[in-house]
Amino acid sequence: FSRCGKLLCNTILGEIPDEEQILPRKDYESLDYDRCISEPYVEVLEGMDNKKAKKYEAVHWMMVFAIGVTVGLLGLFVDFFVRLFNKLKFTVVGDSIEKCSDKGCLSLSLLELLAFNMTFVFIASVLVLIEPVAAGSGIPEIKSYLNGVKIPGIVRLRTFLCKAAGVLFSVAGGLFVGKEGPMIHSGAIVGAGLPQFQSITFRKIKFDFPYFRSDRDKRDFVSAGAAAGVAAAFGAPIGGTLFSLEEGSSFWNQALTWKVLFCSMSATFTLNFFRSGINFSKWGSFQLPGLLNFGEFKCPDGDKNCHLWTAVDLAFFVLMGVVGGLLGALFNCMNKNLAKYRIRHIHPKAKFIRVLESLLVTMVTTIVIFAASMLGECRDLSTPTAHNTTLAGSEDINSTIRQFFCSNKTYNDMATLFFNPQEAAIHQLFHQDGTFSPVTLSVFFFLYFLLACWTYGVSVPSGLFVPSLLCGAAFGRLVANVLKVKLGMDIYSGTFALIGAAAFLGGVVRMTISLTVILIESTNEITYGLPIMITLMVAKWTGDFFNKGIYDIHIQLRGVPLLEWETEVEMDRLTASDIMETNLTYVYPHTRVQSLVSILRTTVYHAFPVVTENRQNERDFMKGNILISNNIHFKKSSVVSRAGEQRRRCQSMKSYPSSELRNVCDEQSAAVEPSEEGEDLLQQMLERRHAPYPNLYPDQSPSEEWTMEERFRPLTFHGLILRSQLVNLLIRGVCYAENQSSTNQPRLSYAEMTEDYPRYPDIHDLDLTLLSPRMIVDVTPYMNPCPYTVSPNARISQVFNLFRTMGLRHLPVVNAVGEIVGIITRHNLTHEFLMAKLRQHYITI
Amino acid sequence: FSRCGKLLCNTILGEIPDEEQILPRKDYESLDYDRCISEPYVEVLEGMDNKKAKKYEAVHWMMVFAIGVTVGLLGLFVDFFVRLFNKLKFTVVGDSIEKCSDKGCLSLSLLELLAFNMTFVFIASVLVLIEPVAAGSGIPEIKSYLNGVKIPGIVRLRTFLCKAAGVLFSVAGGLFVGKEGPMIHSGAIVGAGLPQFQSITFRKIKFDFPYFRSDRDKRDFVSAGAAAGVAAAFGAPIGGTLFSLEEGSSFWNQALTWKVLFCSMSATFTLNFFRSGINFSKWGSFQLPGLLNFGEFKCPDGDKNCHLWTAVDLAFFVLMGVVGGLLGALFNCMNKNLAKYRIRHIHPKAKFIRVLESLLVTMVTTIVIFAASMLGECRDLSTPTAHNTTLAGSEDINSTIRQFFCSNKTYNDMATLFFNPQEAAIHQLFHQDGTFSPVTLSVFFFLYFLLACWTYGVSVPSGLFVPSLLCGAAFGRLVANVLKVKLGMDIYSGTFALIGAAAFLGGVVRMTISLTVILIESTNEITYGLPIMITLMVAKWTGDFFNKGIYDIHIQLRGVPLLEWETEVEMDRLTASDIMETNLTYVYPHTRVQSLVSILRTTVYHAFPVVTENRQNERDFMKGNILISNNIHFKKSSVVSRAGEQRRRCQSMKSYPSSELRNVCDEQSAAVEPSEEGEDLLQQMLERRHAPYPNLYPDQSPSEEWTMEERFRPLTFHGLILRSQLVNLLIRGVCYAENQSSTNQPRLSYAEMTEDYPRYPDIHDLDLTLLSPRMIVDVTPYMNPCPYTVSPNARISQVFNLFRTMGLRHLPVVNAVGEIVGIITRHNLTHEFLMAKLRQHYITI
Repeated sequence: FSRCGKLLCNTILGEIPDEEQILPRKDYESLDYDRCISEPYVEVLEGMDNKKAKKYEAVHWMMVFAIGVTVGLLGLFVDFFVRLFNKLKFTVVGDSIEKCSDKGCLSLSLLELLAFNMTFVFIASVLVLIEPVAAGSGIPEIKSYLNGVKIPGIVRLRTFLCKAAGVLFSVAGGLFVGKEGPMIHSGAIVGAGLPQFQSITFRKIKFDFPYFRSDRDKRDFVSAGAAAGVAAAFGAPIGGTLFSLEEGSSFWNQALTWKVLFCSMSATFTLNFFRSGINFSKWGSFQLPGLLNFGEFKCPDGDKNCHLWTAVDLAFFVLMGVVGGLLGALFNCMNKNLAKYRIRHIHPKAKFIRVLESLLVTMVTTIVIFAASMLGECRDLSTPTAHNTTLAGSEDINSTIRQFFCSNKTYNDMATLFFNPQEAAIHQLFHQDGTFSPVTLSVFFFLYFLLACWTYGVSVPSGLFVPSLLCGAAFGRLVANVLKVKLGMDIYSGTFALIGAAAFLGGVVRMTISLTVILIESTNEITYGLPIMITLMVAKWTGDFFNKGIYDIHIQLRGVPLLEWETEVEMDRLTASDIMETNLTYVYPHTRVQSLVSILRTTVYHAFPVVTENRQNERDFMKGNILISNNIHFKKSSVVSRAGEQRRRCQSMKSYPSSELRNVCDEQSAAVEPSEEGEDLLQQMLERRHAPYPNLYPDQSPSEEWTMEERFRPLTFHGLILRSQLVNLLIRGVCYAENQSSTNQPRLSYAEMTEDYPRYPDIHDLDLTLLSPRMIVDVTPYMNPCPYTVSPNARISQVFNLFRTMGLRHLPVVNAVGEIVGIITRHNLTHEFLMAKLRQHYITI
Repeated sequence: FSRCGKLLCNTILGEIPDEEQILPRKDYESLDYDRCISEPYVEVLEGMDNKKAKKYEAVHWMMVFAIGVTVGLLGLFVDFFVRLFNKLKFTVVGDSIEKCSDKGCLSLSLLELLAFNMTFVFIASVLVLIEPVAAGSGIPEIKSYLNGVKIPGIVRLRTFLCKAAGVLFSVAGGLFVGKEGPMIHSGAIVGAGLPQFQSITFRKIKFDFPYFRSDRDKRDFVSAGAAAGVAAAFGAPIGGTLFSLEEGSSFWNQALTWKVLFCSMSATFTLNFFRSGINFSKWGSFQLPGLLNFGEFKCPDGDKNCHLWTAVDLAFFVLMGVVGGLLGALFNCMNKNLAKYRIRHIHPKAKFIRVLESLLVTMVTTIVIFAASMLGECRDLSTPTAHNTTLAGSEDINSTIRQFFCSNKTYNDMATLFFNPQEAAIHQLFHQDGTFSPVTLSVFFFLYFLLACWTYGVSVPSGLFVPSLLCGAAFGRLVANVLKVKLGMDIYSGTFALIGAAAFLGGVVRMTISLTVILIESTNEITYGLPIMITLMVAKWTGDFFNKGIYDIHIQLRGVPLLEWETEVEMDRLTASDIMETNLTYVYPHTRVQSLVSILRTTVYHAFPVVTENRQNERDFMKGNILISNNIHFKKSSVVSRAGEQRRRCQSMKSYPSSELRNVCDEQSAAVEPSEEGEDLLQQMLERRHAPYPNLYPDQSPSEEWTMEERFRPLTFHGLILRSQLVNLLIRGVCYAENQSSTNQPRLSYAEMTEDYPRYPDIHDLDLTLLSPRMIVDVTPYMNPCPYTVSPNARISQVFNLFRTMGLRHLPVVNAVGEIVGIITRHNLTHEFLMAKLRQHYITI
C-alpha cells in the first residue's frame, strides 16, 4: 500500500497528470436509440390503428410488471440463500468459538471459518471466470449502457446467471462486498431479456408490432429493470426511478417514468410480500422494506426532549460531509491505482491468477475478522431499548450482539461488528444504545476501509454500497461518541452514524439526486431529507475537487466513451465543424454490390451517409457559394489531424483485448505507414479513401485524375444507412440488375429488417459468391431519410444537447445548402476529445 | 344543477361532441427557451472563463437557496394568518354556540359566522378584482408556463401580492378551498421574480454575465419556485421536484433537477424550522412536516395483529380507484359546464357581479355548515387513542372534536367535520378511532362535493387539493365503515380514508408520478407506496375514459396551446410538411428600414427567417432538382387552406378579450373579404403577402410581374430573427447608409440586446421618424444563425420530440438543399391542430 499511498499523495498534492491517461476507446458504439424511419417502418406505422396501439401499450405494461415481479423474486432468492449460508456459517463457527474459548482450540474455529469462506469465494470466483463481465458491482456497466453505450455481453443471460449466483457466494464468503450493485445489474439484465423472450413465445404480438426488438425498447426496459433492482435492494422505489433517470437521462419521458415507477413498486412489494410470508409467516402483509434497510430511527417514547437532529447538528453534518468527501477521494484514488495495477499485471496473466487473488483476499479478510473479534472490549449491555421494531420488521437489535469472551450482561463490541452479517452490523451502528469504544470504532473503520478498497475490483461479483455504509457509519458513530461523551452534547447517535454513512458513501460514489432519495427511503423518515442532502452535496463537492466518483473511474479505466450531463460553458467556443469527423465514406442511392461489399470490408464505420452529387453544375456551385468553399476548407483542414487520429485509434484498439475490429485496424495501420505528418500523409489518406471502391455509382466512376476540388466536391445529403442494414440487404439479396429498374428490387418488411436483432452478421463472415457484383442496390427505401442534423456553425452545447437528449448514434453535419460536411458521433463529444479540440482551438487563435 | 346534470349525462353517455369546442388561441406565444447564439451572445461566451462560470454557478445556487427560503417564509406567513383568523372565528362563534344552545339564540351565532366569513371572502374577492389572474388555484397557469407558454401577467409581483393575501382570506372565510394551489403559484412567482430583482441590485454580476435576464433562466427558476411551493405546502420536497419535472419536462437536466431538489428542501426546512419554533417553542428542531400533513399512520403499540393494509385490501383499493375515477369525472364535467356558463354569462358583465357570486357562495356554504352541524349524531368518545403524535407534530386528535348539543363523553360527528379547519377534519377522518355514522359521512361527502365543485372557479384564490382530499376521505371512511361494521373485516380505517382521498383526488386532477410521491411523502410512510400508486393509476385510467383532468380542462377553456407529453402513434402518418406554416414572411440579410417597419407593422409573426435567393441560377435549380419542385408543391397546396385559417384565427382572437394583436387582426380580416375560397382567394393572399413591403432587398425588388414560380422561388435559409430583436435594432438605430459598408453599422452588446427584457416595446408605439427609411439594416450579427431545423419529411413524433424537448419557439422546416419551406410553432403541434390535419390526411388519401 505504500506505493499506492505515494501515488496518491502525488495525485492529490502535486496534481501530476497521469502519465498514461486512458482515452475513450473507439470501438464502443452507441445504441440505436433514435428510430430509423425508413419505408418498412412507415409500413408498420400505416398498419397501426388505435386498437393495435392500445394492445401494444397493454403488452408494454404487462412486460414492465413482469420485470418488476421477476426482480422482486430474484431479490428474494438472493436474500434467502445469503441468509441461509450466513446462518449456517455463523452458527457452526460461533458455537465452535463459544466452546473453544474455554478449551483453547480457537485455531480450529479459525480453520472452520476459513474453510467456509474460501469455498464460497472459490465458487463465486469460478463463476466470474465463466463470464468476466459479471465481476464487480455492475453499476459502471449499467451506467454506460443507460448512457447509450453498447458494451458486449453486459445484458446476456450468461452474465445474469453468473452474477446472481456469484453474488450469493461472495457475500456469504465473508468478503467486504455488498449485494446491491449486482442486484441492480441483474435487474437490468432481466429488463433486457424478459421482453425478448416474450417476443419469441408469443409470435403473434411480435408480428403485429415488432417494436420490442430494437435498442430503443431494450434500453427503456433496462431502465425499468435497473430501477427495480434498486427498489428491491433498498426498498426504495422512488429512488430507483430517479437512479434510472439520473443515469439514463434521455429526455424526460413521462410515460416511461411512470412505467419505471410502477416496475420499481412491483419489485419492492413482490419482495416484501414473500419476505413477510416466509420470514415472519405474515402472508398478505407488506410491512417489510427492502433487502437493505436501516431500521427505524425514533426517539424513545417517553423522552419529549429528544430530537433526531437540530439546527446545531447541521454544522457538524457539513464538516462530516467534508471529511467524507476527503475519505472518499482517498478511497477512490487508492482503488484507481489498484485497478490500474490489476489491468497491467494481473489481467494479462492466466485466468486462475484472478481466482488466487480472490482467495488471498478472503484469507486475509477472514483472519482479520477473527483476530479483531478476539480483541474487542467488553461493554455493558444497555437496558432493553425502547425501540419499537415491529413495524420496521427488523429483528430485535440485541439479538445480534456477540458475547465472545465477555461475561454476562456485557458484550464484545468488536465481535458484534465484525462477526455478523454486514446488515446486522449496520443496524448495530445505527441503533445500538450501548456504546462502542472509540478504539473499536477506529480500528473497525481503518480495517474496513483498507479491505473494502482492496476487495472492490477482485474478480467476484461485489457491490460497494454496504461496505461504504458500514465504513461511514463507524466514522459517524465515532464522531457521535466524541460529541456525546467528551463534549457532553445532547445528540442522537444513530443520526450521526447515518450521516457518516451518507458522507462516506457520497464521497465514494458521488451520486446526487438518486442517492439522496434512496437514503431517505431506506430510513423511511422524511425529516432526514435536509441533512442527508446537505451532507451528500458537501461530500460530492469536496470529492470532486480531487477525482471522480468510483464508478466513473472504472468507466474511464475501461475506456467507455461516456457522455457527461452537460458540456462546460467554455466548450461553446467550439462549433460543430471543429469537432466533426470529416473523412466520410458515403454511398450513393444506387450502388453496385461490388462497391458496397468493398466499402463494408475496408471500413470500420457503422453508418454511411447516402449522398448525390451534381457534377454538371459543380463549378457554378463552387464559384457562386461561399458556403461550399467553406465546406472544402473544413474538409481540407481536418484531414491531416484526422489521419493521425485514425492511427492512434488503431493503436488504442490493439492495446485492448477482444475487439472484433482489430483485424481491420491492423490492416489499415499496416497500409498507412507512420511516416511524417503533412502533405505526404494527406496524399495517402486520399488514396486510401478512394482506392477501395471503384465504380461507386452506376453512371459515375471516380477516377484517379480527379483534382483536389473534385475529390471534395459537394455532396447533397439524403439520409443515413447503418452498416447492419447494408449487410442485411446483401444477405437477403435486395438488388436489381443493371438493365432493370429499381422497382424490380425485392422489398423487405420491418420484421425482416430486424430479424437478426441484436446480433447482426458481420460482413467478413458472409459468403456473397451468389450475388453478382455488377448488380445494383437501391438503398433509399431502407435508409433513415430524415435524421436530425446540425449546422457546421452550431455551438457544442447545442450539438451535445441534441445528441444526448435524443439518444443519437450518428449526427450528420449539414451546411446551409444541404451538403454533408461531416458526422458527429459519441466519440466526438467525449470530454477528452472536446478538451483536445479546445486546446487546438486556443493554439490556432 | 339539474341543467348541469343533464349536460353531464349527455356528455358521458351520448358522447355528444361539444357544440362549441374551444380551440387553442393563436395569440399565446412560446417562451424563448432555446438560446439564440447570435454574435453578441458569442462575445459573452468568449469572455467566459472558468472563474466567471464558477461565479455564475455560485450565484445560481444562492438564488435557488434564496427562492427556497422565501417560499418557506411565505408558507409560514400564510399558515400563521390562516390559523390566527380561524382561531379567532371558531373561538368566538364556538363560544356563542355553546352559550346559545341553552338560551336558544342560535340565529345570532349564525349571523356572527356569516359576518366573519363574508368579510373575509369580500376582501379576497376584491384582491382578485385588482389582478384577475390571481383567481383560482394557479396550477393551470403554472402548468402552462412550465410547458413553455407565455401567459401575460402570471408571474408578476401584483399577482403574487393578490394571490398570497387573497388565499389567506378565502381559506379563513370558510370556503371549501385549499391553500396548496395558490402556494404553488406564489412559489413560482417568487422563483420568477427574485433573480430579476437580484440583477437590478447587484449590477456587477449582471454586467459580467447577464444570463438571468432570459426566458430560459426564468423558466428554470420558476420550476424551482413551483417545486418549493409544493414542498412547503405538503412537506414533500421530492414530490415537488417531480411535480416540476412532470409539468415542466424539458429535457432531463440533472444539474437543474439537483438545484430544484435543493430549493424544495430549503423551503420545507425553512418552514419547519420556524413552525417548530413559533408553534411549539422548539427552536432548532425540524420535526414538523409541511402545512398540510396527514399525521402518522400507525398501529396501536400493543396490537401485533394490526396491519395498515394487506393483500386482500388491494382489491378494494382497486374498486375504490374506479369509483374515485368516476366521481372525479363527474366533478370535472360539472365544473367544466359551470366554468363555461361563467365565461359566457358572468365574465362579460360588470366586475362586481363576480364579487357578488363569491359572497353568495360564502353565504350558502356558511349556512350549510351551520345547519349540518346542528344535525350531527352524538357518538361515544373513544378511549384515549394510542396514537403517538409527538413526532408528527400534529395536535392531539381529540382536541379538535366538537361536542355541540351532545352530552359529556360523546361528540357531534357532523360538527367535528364541518366546524373545524379543513386540515383538522382530514386528521379526524384519517385518525379518529371513534366512528362517524354512515349517514353523516354520506351527507358530508355529498355537500362537500357539490359546494367544492361550485366554489372552484369563483373569483377568489382557491386550491382544490384539500377539498378533494376531504371529499375522498369521507368516501373512504364510509367504505371502511361498511367493511368493518357490516362485514366485520379486520381493517385499518385510516388507510381506507387515505386511499379514498387518493382515489378522488386522482380522479379529479389526474396527476400521476408527482401525486403518488406527494401523497407518500405526506404520510411519511413508504409502505403506502403500492396502494397509493395503484389507486391513482386506476382512478386516472377510469377518469380519462370520460374527460380530462380538471387543470387540463381549465387550460383548454382558456385556449392555451399546451403540448402533451407525446403524440399518438397515429400522428406519425403525418410529416412536418403536412403541418408546417408555409405562408412565410422573411427578411434578407440586408434590409431597408422602411421594409422592416412595414413587415413588423403588418404582420403578427414573432420570428422571421433570414433568407437569400439565387435568382440567376433559379431556373437551373428548378429543372435539376426534384426537391425544389416539391418545395413549390408544398407551398402551393397549402396557401388556400392557410388563408382560411388566417381568417379563422382572427375570428378566434376576436372572441377573447385583451389581445394586443386584435387591431392588426381586424385590419387584416377587413382587407381579406370573406369571398369564395379558391383561386380568387389565392390571388388575394399573394397580393396581401407582397404588397406591404416594397424594396425588400437593396438590389432586388420584387415586382408585380413575377410569375407564380418566381413568387415561390427557392429561398436559402440562413437564420432566424425575432420580432423583439428587430424592434430593438430599429430603436437603437442599428443600420448603415446605402453608400457605406455594413461594417459601419453600430454594434450592440448582449446586455443591450436584452436590456428591455421581459417587456420589449411594441413596434406600433415607436416613433421612428428619426430613422431614414432608406437606411439598411444588417441583421446577420443578431440573428440565430443555426437554430435546430427539421426536414419536410420528418415524422410528427420526431418534430414533436425535438420541439418540446429543446423548448423551441420556432422550428424552421428546411429541405434537402437548404431552402426554407415552412415554419413550425407550438400551434402546429397542439392536439387539436394535429387531429384536424390527420382528418385532412385521411380525406386526401
